[in-house]
Amino acid sequence: MDKSLLDRITGPEALKRLGPGNLERLCKEIRDTLIESVSQNGGHLASNLGVVELTVALHRVFESPADQIVWDVGHQCYTHKLLTGRRDLSSALRRADGISGFPRPSESEHDPFVSGHASTSLSVAGGIARSKELLGEKGHVIAVIGDGALTGGMAFEGLNSLAQNKDGRVIVILNDNEMSISKNVGGFTKYLSRLRTNSSYYKLKDVTKSVLQSIPLMGDSLTSLASGSVAQIKNLVYHSDFFEDLGYSYMGPVDGHDLSALQDSLRRARGLNRPVLLHVRTVKGKGYTYAEQNPGAWHGVAKFDPKYAGEPLPLADSFSDVFGRRLTELAEENDRIVAVTAAMKYATGLYHFSRRFKKSGRFFDVGIAEGHGIAFCAAMASKGLVPVMAVYSTFLQRGYDQLLHDCAIDRRHIVLAVDRAGLVGEDGETHQGIFDCAFLSTVPGAAIYSPVSYKELELCLGEAVAGEGIQAVRYPRGGQCEPDKFDRPTAASIHIDSGSRETLIVTYGRIFAQVAEARRTLPGGDRVSIIRMTKIWPLDKGVLGIAARYERIIFVEEGISAGGIGEHFLARLSLGGYRGKTMLRAIENRFVPQGTVAWQMKTLRLDAGSLAEDITRFGREGR
Amino acid sequence: MDKSLLDRITGPEALKRLGPGNLERLCKEIRDTLIESVSQNGGHLASNLGVVELTVALHRVFESPADQIVWDVGHQCYTHKLLTGRRDLSSALRRADGISGFPRPSESEHDPFVSGHASTSLSVAGGIARSKELLGEKGHVIAVIGDGALTGGMAFEGLNSLAQNKDGRVIVILNDNEMSISKNVGGFTKYLSRLRTNSSYYKLKDVTKSVLQSIPLMGDSLTSLASGSVAQIKNLVYHSDFFEDLGYSYMGPVDGHDLSALQDSLRRARGLNRPVLLHVRTVKGKGYTYAEQNPGAWHGVAKFDPKYAGEPLPLADSFSDVFGRRLTELAEENDRIVAVTAAMKYATGLYHFSRRFKKSGRFFDVGIAEGHGIAFCAAMASKGLVPVMAVYSTFLQRGYDQLLHDCAIDRRHIVLAVDRAGLVGEDGETHQGIFDCAFLSTVPGAAIYSPVSYKELELCLGEAVAGEGIQAVRYPRGGQCEPDKFDRPTAASIHIDSGSRETLIVTYGRIFAQVAEARRTLPGGDRVSIIRMTKIWPLDKGVLGIAARYERIIFVEEGISAGGIGEHFLARLSLGGYRGKTMLRAIENRFVPQGTVAWQMKTLRLDAGSLAEDITRFGREGR
Repeated sequence: MDKSLLDRITGPEALKRLGPGNLERLCKEIRDTLIESVSQNGGHLASNLGVVELTVALHRVFESPADQIVWDVGHQCYTHKLLTGRRDLSSALRRADGISGFPRPSESEHDPFVSGHASTSLSVAGGIARSKELLGEKGHVIAVIGDGALTGGMAFEGLNSLAQNKDGRVIVILNDNEMSISKNVGGFTKYLSRLRTNSSYYKLKDVTKSVLQSIPLMGDSLTSLASGSVAQIKNLVYHSDFFEDLGYSYMGPVDGHDLSALQDSLRRARGLNRPVLLHVRTVKGKGYTYAEQNPGAWHGVAKFDPKYAGEPLPLADSFSDVFGRRLTELAEENDRIVAVTAAMKYATGLYHFSRRFKKSGRFFDVGIAEGHGIAFCAAMASKGLVPVMAVYSTFLQRGYDQLLHDCAIDRRHIVLAVDRAGLVGEDGETHQGIFDCAFLSTVPGAAIYSPVSYKELELCLGEAVAGEGIQAVRYPRGGQCEPDKFDRPTAASIHIDSGSRETLIVTYGRIFAQVAEARRTLPGGDRVSIIRMTKIWPLDKGVLGIAARYERIIFVEEGISAGGIGEHFLARLSLGGYRGKTMLRAIENRFVPQGTVAWQMKTLRLDAGSLAEDITRFGREGR
Repeated sequence: MDKSLLDRITGPEALKRLGPGNLERLCKEIRDTLIESVSQNGGHLASNLGVVELTVALHRVFESPADQIVWDVGHQCYTHKLLTGRRDLSSALRRADGISGFPRPSESEHDPFVSGHASTSLSVAGGIARSKELLGEKGHVIAVIGDGALTGGMAFEGLNSLAQNKDGRVIVILNDNEMSISKNVGGFTKYLSRLRTNSSYYKLKDVTKSVLQSIPLMGDSLTSLASGSVAQIKNLVYHSDFFEDLGYSYMGPVDGHDLSALQDSLRRARGLNRPVLLHVRTVKGKGYTYAEQNPGAWHGVAKFDPKYAGEPLPLADSFSDVFGRRLTELAEENDRIVAVTAAMKYATGLYHFSRRFKKSGRFFDVGIAEGHGIAFCAAMASKGLVPVMAVYSTFLQRGYDQLLHDCAIDRRHIVLAVDRAGLVGEDGETHQGIFDCAFLSTVPGAAIYSPVSYKELELCLGEAVAGEGIQAVRYPRGGQCEPDKFDRPTAASIHIDSGSRETLIVTYGRIFAQVAEARRTLPGGDRVSIIRMTKIWPLDKGVLGIAARYERIIFVEEGISAGGIGEHFLARLSLGGYRGKTMLRAIENRFVPQGTVAWQMKTLRLDAGSLAEDITRFGREGR
């Protein structure tokens, strides 16, 4: 493929020097590169294909890094990376020590702020803008936010707060592709849809203006309005939309694939010197037919063959899928079960449930709104329903207060299907599911399961649905690994008893496979016992009792150390009078960068090899 | 005071039987009772005085509990409690085993859901409404939300989500008093202010309608509109506000102190059978001159003399006040310091800073929007400023994800002034600040200080401002107690060494006073040593080393046990090879109901007397 134009773009300055006639070809080269990069590394495809022209226009009009571009969620920043000196996307995207799939300030001065979670860009842009003002720095701040992310409450908080500043440093770009990841929901979405179908909206307003100006000439009926003045009608007409009500000048909608219209609009927006929201319509997946036709399936994808002829991507066998199928079965038997997702119907496996129960009103997609989703579940639980919310571990962090305040105080029974728990691999720091055990276990009355196999997930889900209070079932991204290693499935725990009382390893979840492998390769490994817990919280007194009989205990955990299950376990052992030696292997006070899960485990010394070394050393200590 | 009408109101049915001519007198009696109750017990006054008529109207028109009323935040539910059988408010409000100052389902079938944090009512009302539908239950759900709470992102998520359902089960009442707790902020507030000054708004719309209907008769200028049809102009005029854009029928503004207008509007809203938002204007503090004149100061108050003649309530000497003054001093010396509050300028003590630095643009009230506030701080930190956000411990729970995602990944240096940390007393379950140590310590790179005296708060604040990453300084509600007990102020830790290596108590924060008292009264207490930590996280290796020399260690903590500092401490001791005996006294897997802090400590066996007993028993064990 010809990439001769793109090869010349060493940075935004080079892009500005390119003649306008070359831009369309450049966009084609960028799209080819995006498809190539994602096909080789996996990543976000549809969202990136949608903003090629918008990104080119932004870098033509603005002066990054003096002007700072904040990409909301960040899963649409690949073109931005290509245009700001990160040309090796194809070979380095999402790889260990490579290029992140999200904005990372550590990577480039053109990435002002980290992102990965939705709806943060307006708050961030506001903070940067106010700082620029205080520091006397020049430059604009551009927040690019999708219509999906704009339904998140934090985006509204940011939008509301930004509008206070009249200086026009911040330009909000609404990247409207009529999607979040699933189809959008809610009143706001319907509003946008009205706005966007009014392609003549702006024109109409201009005409209306002239009409209204002429009205006073037309007689008494208008001048005698009860409230007195035509100004008020004008006010109604001019301030006729949501964004203007909030204090923004609204511009749009603009065709997000028309380079010249985009550049014009951006220049006008920059010149307004007051809060402005530019509504840009883009097509998710633009330029790659398969992705255009099924942008949901092509949102985040694994490696693929770009020539692959457009069948929907085969759904990998996964925990998410098993969860979705099993929940649907349980709901057939129990009509109190309802399901909730925050804009993640496909990725969480809830589409099975949705297909079966949407018509009966038992499926709810609340949009990108985790906090709301949890309180909504709690309220349904107060009426005797059994709500099951499927949510990624990392996004559940958004609902911590609602778990405490809305669920736990009155012991509302809700089930959390916590997907992508543990290391997630290539998405990196922002997406690791390594905090859920720590924060969920602080919530009074919560229970946590960590199944290692599909069969076990089904068992745990059954227990969670039958249980009380907050019942969380957490499972990793992807599929089960080597289920034959897992003895028998259990929703409690399993003691693999070597007969010796010397060394015990206590662990849970997927990392058990590494522990089992370490034990297999260890000299004298057959003298090491293992307890694998499936119900990990609250701690099982029986398990603590068994553990206390061992001379040495090693706790291995694929999660943050502080507040994790391992610390709880060790503290309870100590309180119970345990005087043996202990070791904890978990993630110590750090975030985990992108790479394969295997690489991450190795980096954290949680892979079988490192564990074997550490266990051996531990066995020698104090002899 | 005559309470003869109120005495007859045993429940909503009795209220309905009252003749309309008696309602005004009833409202007077209610107000007298509210003032009496709050003057005797402390509590929320201004917010409750504002909704007397609204509450009476609600219970006249609707049928609680078949219709369910969800009070947002809940600090305006006193009249509701009086009208639903909880007549002993004066004697029982906010007391242990008495009547909560917030809705509590455990207290009455008329309280459908717990509240205490802002912006949850729409999510909750939505969940209840969908459940009613699925369960075939009759009845409406009424969410009453203040204009302040409506700026919280979760409220927008709820508003957006509710609008999807066209059945009109939910009626949203916007209780617009132009206040949250401080003065409101943001674009949305300005919008409401336009809406409310248009007192003729609805009337105008009706007139406009008739005008527009007549327009086609008036000639070519209109019929030849570029976009074709007059329908589109009508559309612009009718859908001319924020709420209608979201899909609600907007009604109002209605005078919230006009009983008959309120009842009429509520009946109309009930009859609409589609999503409706009724805008009610109320006066915070209505009927008590001092509170009307200064509703901020009279929002939440301690006991007072109702005859007390209207001086602003004297500001008690408090940690909040000391924080606010000291931060202002630090900011005089360091112009990189900026301050942020989420609608809590007064209660957090930031009004000192605000008064001094608002004009220079260094003070930000972001409204009830903790998540946004934290990301906003992180963005300012990315530009080299030093943002200090003052926030109640319990509300900081709303920002957990932003601490992880927006602050910690890139080690942004922000200072959290965590007010109301620990037990808060009469506000009860929803407001206890007992989770912050647990969740903050899961955040990589965070540091936590827990000063016991004003002098120490000043020291810690200085260290936090000079530090790196997230620096949290947490301190309790109210003032320092007996500072002479605290040896010397320190931002590190103090070892009160008895000379004996038998028993050590490790503790931090206010509860130290109980520990010191327990030690004083214990037989042989002079042989007990104490380590009081001020910097409590990350754990100090030196402190762990000293602790390890003792035979027995007791950790005492005024916070949740799971994931608390005590567990971290015990786990690290175990990992360090400690083999002595340990005991942990903290809050075990539960919420803490209302009462005085002294009562709560006793209930939790964290008071000096209980601690002395437990320490004595612990000392005898295993001998």
